[in-house]
Amino acid sequence: MNSFGRIFRLHIFGESHGESVGIVIDGCPAGLKISPDDLLPDLERRKGGKQKGTTPRQEEDFPIFKSGIFNGHTTGAPITILFENKNTRSADYEKQRSFPRPGHADWVARKKFGGYEDFRGGGHFSARLTTGLVAAGAIAKKLLNESIVTRGSLTISANVIEIGGLTDTEAGLQKAIDAKDSVGGIVECRVNGMPAGLGEPFFDSVESQIAHIAFAIPAVKGVEFGAGFAAARMFGIEHNDAIENIEGETKTNNAGGVVGGITNGNELVFRIAIKPTASTPKQQRSLNWDTGKVEDFSIKGRHDLCVALRAPVILEAAAAVVLADFFLLEQVTPRVINIK
Amino acid sequence: MNSFGRIFRLHIFGESHGESVGIVIDGCPAGLKISPDDLLPDLERRKGGKQKGTTPRQEEDFPIFKSGIFNGHTTGAPITILFENKNTRSADYEKQRSFPRPGHADWVARKKFGGYEDFRGGGHFSARLTTGLVAAGAIAKKLLNESIVTRGSLTISANVIEIGGLTDTEAGLQKAIDAKDSVGGIVECRVNGMPAGLGEPFFDSVESQIAHIAFAIPAVKGVEFGAGFAAARMFGIEHNDAIENIEGETKTNNAGGVVGGITNGNELVFRIAIKPTASTPKQQRSLNWDTGKVEDFSIKGRHDLCVALRAPVILEAAAAVVLADFFLLEQVTPRVINIK
Amino acid sequence: MNSFGRIFRLHIFGESHGESVGIVIDGCPAGLKISPDDLLPDLERRKGGKQKGTTPRQEEDFPIFKSGIFNGHTTGAPITILFENKNTRSADYEKQRSFPRPGHADWVARKKFGGYEDFRGGGHFSARLTTGLVAAGAIAKKLLNESIVTRGSLTISANVIEIGGLTDTEAGLQKAIDAKDSVGGIVECRVNGMPAGLGEPFFDSVESQIAHIAFAIPAVKGVEFGAGFAAARMFGIEHNDAIENIEGETKTNNAGGVVGGITNGNELVFRIAIKPTASTPKQQRSLNWDTGKVEDFSIKGRHDLCVALRAPVILEAAAAVVLADFFLLEQVTPRVINIK
Amino acid sequence: MNSFGRIFRLHIFGESHGESVGIVIDGCPAGLKISPDDLLPDLERRKGGKQKGTTPRQEEDFPIFKSGIFNGHTTGAPITILFENKNTRSADYEKQRSFPRPGHADWVARKKFGGYEDFRGGGHFSARLTTGLVAAGAIAKKLLNESIVTRGSLTISANVIEIGGLTDTEAGLQKAIDAKDSVGGIVECRVNGMPAGLGEPFFDSVESQIAHIAFAIPAVKGVEFGAGFAAARMFGIEHNDAIENIEGETKTNNAGGVVGGITNGNELVFRIAIKPTASTPKQQRSLNWDTGKVEDFSIKGRHDLCVALRAPVILEAAAAVVLADFFLLEQVTPRVINIK
Repeated sequence: MNSFGRIFRLHIFGESHGESVGIVIDGCPAGLKISPDDLLPDLERRKGGKQKGTTPRQEEDFPIFKSGIFNGHTTGAPITILFENKNTRSADYEKQRSFPRPGHADWVARKKFGGYEDFRGGGHFSARLTTGLVAAGAIAKKLLNESIVTRGSLTISANVIEIGGLTDTEAGLQKAIDAKDSVGGIVECRVNGMPAGLGEPFFDSVESQIAHIAFAIPAVKGVEFGAGFAAARMFGIEHNDAIENIEGETKTNNAGGVVGGITNGNELVFRIAIKPTASTPKQQRSLNWDTGKVEDFSIKGRHDLCVALRAPVILEAAAAVVLADFFLLEQVTPRVINIK
Repeated sequence: MNSFGRIFRLHIFGESHGESVGIVIDGCPAGLKISPDDLLPDLERRKGGKQKGTTPRQEEDFPIFKSGIFNGHTTGAPITILFENKNTRSADYEKQRSFPRPGHADWVARKKFGGYEDFRGGGHFSARLTTGLVAAGAIAKKLLNESIVTRGSLTISANVIEIGGLTDTEAGLQKAIDAKDSVGGIVECRVNGMPAGLGEPFFDSVESQIAHIAFAIPAVKGVEFGAGFAAARMFGIEHNDAIENIEGETKTNNAGGVVGGITNGNELVFRIAIKPTASTPKQQRSLNWDTGKVEDFSIKGRHDLCVALRAPVILEAAAAVVLADFFLLEQVTPRVINIK
Repeated sequence: MNSFGRIFRLHIFGESHGESVGIVIDGCPAGLKISPDDLLPDLERRKGGKQKGTTPRQEEDFPIFKSGIFNGHTTGAPITILFENKNTRSADYEKQRSFPRPGHADWVARKKFGGYEDFRGGGHFSARLTTGLVAAGAIAKKLLNESIVTRGSLTISANVIEIGGLTDTEAGLQKAIDAKDSVGGIVECRVNGMPAGLGEPFFDSVESQIAHIAFAIPAVKGVEFGAGFAAARMFGIEHNDAIENIEGETKTNNAGGVVGGITNGNELVFRIAIKPTASTPKQQRSLNWDTGKVEDFSIKGRHDLCVALRAPVILEAAAAVVLADFFLLEQVTPRVINIK
Repeated sequence: MNSFGRIFRLHIFGESHGESVGIVIDGCPAGLKISPDDLLPDLERRKGGKQKGTTPRQEEDFPIFKSGIFNGHTTGAPITILFENKNTRSADYEKQRSFPRPGHADWVARKKFGGYEDFRGGGHFSARLTTGLVAAGAIAKKLLNESIVTRGSLTISANVIEIGGLTDTEAGLQKAIDAKDSVGGIVECRVNGMPAGLGEPFFDSVESQIAHIAFAIPAVKGVEFGAGFAAARMFGIEHNDAIENIEGETKTNNAGGVVGGITNGNELVFRIAIKPTASTPKQQRSLNWDTGKVEDFSIKGRHDLCVALRAPVILEAAAAVVLADFFLLEQVTPRVINIK
């Protein structure tokens, strides 16, 4: 239930304020050169903390390889990456335990796990879990670019394209700062250098796989490809992407690079909608579990105003692991990589 | 790759103009009373043909049980349901084989399967495959309502809420008829009587599973839950659903009934964006495989102007199979159902 | 639960006296030339009926392709193969329903499926289900030999090596005929032309996968590789297979071609123990469900004296599907086969 | 590929002389009381070192919980257990790298992973990996006994029943000590208190699942249930277990408690054949990779004479995880355990 992938498989674990968070990556071919330095830039991007609108809590987030790496290369055995939790302030969470925070998993977690869940800092539901995903993504990106035959090279790039309804994202963030409230946003991911032919006709369409993992990212409430929801407002003649040559290049890209569940070699384009951070600084009025009554309360602790700001690198990681998995399924890469 | 589910598992097969389409359903508990009559109303809804804007091609779509049903009840063994293809006009497709139809899977299928794919009528990519899904959905609905303890009963209901950008769907369809073009639409699904606690914190969130199967439905380009993309434009205080009582009922339902990947007992609400039918009646200008040049062509054959019209029952089926799977995972239903 | 494989996947269905038995094969690459004639020789071997010691019931066992084959080749989409049941005498089974037959699944099936199971002729537990497996095996054999690079060619050959404790199998069978009883036997499978490197270090060892499917064959009670149980009685210096050259050829083959879960390129050798047919012609004394008492009864109907006689082709099929799956996982074969 | 189970899932990782070995256990219900003390007795049994015939290398084998445990109870989230490697002497292995040790995975590992494998001490192929399995087994045993409704209680007990062909195991071991060679053995596992109805008719038979994981244990070359290979030498009337009462109790137990792939409530009995330790102290004559010639060499380092001695607790663990998985599948236990 905490696993994803068919060949390139992830098993995620950990809690925000427990011992650690981490990930096991199974199915990565042997021979890929990997050091912590390959992971640190993406891990740094995930942390935020230096940007306006992100939490000042900063874990060191140093990836410790516990298995699967030998002499600086992958061995073909499962890669375990651990991040120790150090900079935690659980007391903040103990205090507000009476209130199942609206928009958070507190109420459902208690319902599902009977009070045994690690509730500190969101526990296993915390966005801190995405650290492991970002680490896996960094490895997947390297695998895609160093070992897999692509049209030149594969670049995966995600950006915040809208905050609080404004495409001028700085203005959108400022609106939230001024309102002293959290705010949502939209993140777009584009992948260039895609080969055609990845994906399956039905249940394992590229869209299905990407949406599956994208909705695992905390706060995501919508996923769309190419024209997406706008396609629902178009006529056929507007939406259809005319094919220009036998390479399958299309004039427009309303499909977002996927037709019939399968990549068509054009740019892969998709977007996610991210809701406002549930931990708004505003006073809220909601259930108090202790009293059984609706009361005023406010959330303490360090929180992002706009989690969308930290989402691009996570979305890139999600795309990278899905594409690495599809590539390996398509057998474009050998089991053992020959890198000189 | 053509399978879906963990406990309640589907294996889909078939081609539009081949021998048959169908589905194998594994993991359905024994003792559920099932006859073709239980499936026919939903199969009838899927067919369309009587509605404006849907294709006049009408298969009989009579479900033939080839295994797993004995004395009118499920046996606990895999249920195989077959739909024979009879009303096919493959010649229509042979003629236009030179043009990989824009918006269709023709080009990617040939790329991926090297010309061995059954291209007639879209082959394995055809929306006709959804017949099996609708049959599975009808069984899942029955399972959910006759065997699983819910708050009263569980009702799954999907509707077209927008065509061509108009919430007055008749007007939206008329716009397409007038334009002599195909058109997209939005379908919304609502599930009442949901229990809290279904879903998993990370990769197997309810949203992940529903989006996975929803994107398997041909022509779907976006999926959103609750406020969805609109959430990206909201402040935290607007979006957060205040919890009203210890039953977890919320004042608003921007979350669409899912928080932290887990159902919270409120109405489950999600929407899909459906692109315009790729087979527009309009003349198109695209690649001719035979000449290698871009040429004018138009699509023959019988096609829906707006496939969104046939999507509600398919989306209900998708929701039903995901929920049946989660219910069985949560062990709310016994292996053998005791129905008197 | 009725599925097997990772890439080359089988979904089995059907009941002995229901509408049909069959199989869905997913993950078979496109472009493999397949006709019923490719399957008939193995299906014929499975049927028995002409041999002493096998049941005179003979279904036609003609494979009907319901999907996945187009113009005589695989398309890359799921292949559905159906065998209609015609030559059934269910009345035989109705009569003896009072007695849960010792050695048969009657008692456990009723316990597990609450009486809803199709009990006629063993229902979903029947050895008739292996028809689908044999069909899949024939396709896997063809895939292995026509598309996958091996050392020359891969030959899979299984034989009965012992009946009733005698390596002179005719004498062993005669012993049973004389005793008017059913009898067990041992079947050995050998695969020549194996490449080294198939298999995984731990849970997905070649032995694990082969044993998994071998124990799915009805009546199998033991599986061993190479020296097998005899290895438990050896010293290290006797058992170790000295490596003779850098190709990994070994002097002896006590390992049966698998070391550390991975094939070493030597002949793959394994054996299964098959218990005597549960339907012995002898009078038995066992529970009568109707009376709740232990009573005498005897089994009517047509049964094999020694099911081991029909097992070789089933075991070959089991080996073939496992090897095809491992080959595809190892990416030795391309997604689309180029056969001129 | 390094995963096992459907609901109660294991993901194994680590190398003998790397940073650590360990396991992730997903799908364990919340609320089970667990401390390291619950694991230590079984871990101690696995270590050996105090017994004659087992290696004097003794890791501390202290289980470190890195996730999934909170306030001394399982949380429902994945449980990660780490064992740090401390007492390693890699130099021993470096020295003999020229010789792919017969009976070991050296040759196949290099073939498969291209020289990138961690070869020290067997790396990912090492029996040290079973530490994680034993830890998972201890948790599964506790889960089975504290939360799952059984006939009274479930006891899983495995023993060495034969060494070097002698049922007097001390004499068998002495034979090996006298011969200054390693030796094989047979281990039998018995489970009492089994409920009827666990298992599936075909691919997921109880035998299939147990054999799958049993063959993952290093050095296992055979698996048999009940009468096993002896059944192949019996007549039907001898082998059939007469049913004594409506509880399904049988007079004999040649089936080993499994009929038609499903447990029948009688004692579950199965055995594994373990080959002699590949690292025999004897001089061997095998390939030298450096010279490409067959030469004499002998293995240095600390090794068990008879690995069968350490296998019982590993086999119990394998049985426990399979049974826990089947129990959860059968929904005998609730998602959240109510233990006062």
